[in-house]
Amino acid sequence: MDRYCFGVDIGGTGIKIGLFNSEGNLIDKWVFTTHRTDNGMDVLKDVANSIEKIRIEKGLDKEQILGIGVGIPGPVNDKGDVLELPNIGLGGFNIEEEMSSMIGIRVKAGNDANVAALGEQWKGNGKGFENMVLVTLGTGVGGGVIHNGKIVAGSVGAGGEIGHIPVNYNEEDACGCGKHGCLEQYASATGIVRLARQALQRNPKYSLLSDKTDISAKQVFDYAKQGDDLALEIVDEACRYLGIALASVAQILDPEAFVIGGGVSKAGEILTSYIKKHYQPNVMNALKDKPFLIATLGNDAGIYGCARLILT
Amino acid sequence: MDRYCFGVDIGGTGIKIGLFNSEGNLIDKWVFTTHRTDNGMDVLKDVANSIEKIRIEKGLDKEQILGIGVGIPGPVNDKGDVLELPNIGLGGFNIEEEMSSMIGIRVKAGNDANVAALGEQWKGNGKGFENMVLVTLGTGVGGGVIHNGKIVAGSVGAGGEIGHIPVNYNEEDACGCGKHGCLEQYASATGIVRLARQALQRNPKYSLLSDKTDISAKQVFDYAKQGDDLALEIVDEACRYLGIALASVAQILDPEAFVIGGGVSKAGEILTSYIKKHYQPNVMNALKDKPFLIATLGNDAGIYGCARLILT
Repeated sequence: MDRYCFGVDIGGTGIKIGLFNSEGNLIDKWVFTTHRTDNGMDVLKDVANSIEKIRIEKGLDKEQILGIGVGIPGPVNDKGDVLELPNIGLGGFNIEEEMSSMIGIRVKAGNDANVAALGEQWKGNGKGFENMVLVTLGTGVGGGVIHNGKIVAGSVGAGGEIGHIPVNYNEEDACGCGKHGCLEQYASATGIVRLARQALQRNPKYSLLSDKTDISAKQVFDYAKQGDDLALEIVDEACRYLGIALASVAQILDPEAFVIGGGVSKAGEILTSYIKKHYQPNVMNALKDKPFLIATLGNDAGIYGCARLILT
Repeated sequence: MDRYCFGVDIGGTGIKIGLFNSEGNLIDKWVFTTHRTDNGMDVLKDVANSIEKIRIEKGLDKEQILGIGVGIPGPVNDKGDVLELPNIGLGGFNIEEEMSSMIGIRVKAGNDANVAALGEQWKGNGKGFENMVLVTLGTGVGGGVIHNGKIVAGSVGAGGEIGHIPVNYNEEDACGCGKHGCLEQYASATGIVRLARQALQRNPKYSLLSDKTDISAKQVFDYAKQGDDLALEIVDEACRYLGIALASVAQILDPEAFVIGGGVSKAGEILTSYIKKHYQPNVMNALKDKPFLIATLGNDAGIYGCARLILT
């Protein structure tokens, strides 16, 4: 009898479901819209219904499903306890128990950035590193710590919340989390645009960015690659904060490698080389040579990591 | 047949050996001087001879010894590979293999601060927390990360090197490690004295510290407890850097608790309350309530942790 598992990546706007065979190969995937009604409880019901529908369509018995891995956009500890899911509207429950009882199949859950880290470690550019750290540079900055091939979820599920490492003690603007000077304020796509606006304001010299009314992080990197001075300054500033934050990570964990994911990571080598420039002077000699790699699984990292929660 | 193990804490000046029964109770302990001759290889021979002597004195058969846990003052990964032991004069060898073959008993090794963390987690104030972080504030600042009851040694053995987290990006003076702005430059006993000297220079107002030619970290804390303004400022400054560094640790690992050890930790509640003051504004809400505890095993933390390497 062939065995399978599901990887389910629940986001604030969409739900991605992947069907994997027991060797960890992705067989098929689906995307659904997230319905945030009934205080978010409909999201769990939707997932349960979708999986049941897919299972029947594919002609699979329940006994063939080894389990369902679920990634959620909020803190969850390794017992499945969820404090709150701000983007979904749920909180204070055990997602593994809740979903298992809905579907009648074993469920394991993880934080979305943490499962993405696990996915990259298993099937992406983190392959071969049992101890690695993923940083995702998207709308926000997320992260995941993999130790001995497993997620470090943390006692309240806040393990790997690298985006909120304090990196600037003089910041006046508040981060989305309410603190001041979080990495996310400088290294997320939003943060890079913010740095660009500040740079344009304080520096009136001509830049390819000067003509733009609607700046994106991608443009900043594109212009930096073309040699635009101001764009290079902005990249340098964002990567200075990233380098410092990852230096702290290295001093604490000494991982084998760092993997950089999220939309901003598409910038590629310019990103990793500027991060390294600022990382190296901030770590002890023994830690200077860590590889910095670009994530390769893209938006599928989450469903891969979810499958890995089951196929361990 | 009763079973035992040895915990051996090798320092730059002294070697401490503890004999433990299989329940983890310390039965007896000895201290020897470290002889750094023959490029440090004599240290290992000394340890081997001392253990053999103790074993025979105690009338124990080799079969009764479950193993020897060894803590060393330098980076060692979880396979026993030692890059360098600057204070001993050794490097580039596997300490577990080397010592096992000398003594004929299984040897497990760990970094000194890491085994101290394991000791505190097992028998000290970290008891009950499977995931905790120790910071030792002594001549330098050391640390150890315990995850699921085990040391996070890191890929080159530099896990838990919290003393070299970058916390001040404008520091002109160099740390012992060669970097600038490491936590150790502000929160070690030496660092606190340095902050005191700077404070006295920039602030000529009267302080109990003004009359002192030879300031110690202990005096700074004692005078702070007596309400001396300048001493309180210095405590506040040292703890600001500590609070920021431990906030980074929490954002990455979300441990259950922090334990503060080393000579400086004898200051007690004033230390933990000032650390918390600066930690809390620098972490996400979910992480604010972590306990900060004072270590209780003192200089024995290392031998306890070494024993724990064997009695797992």
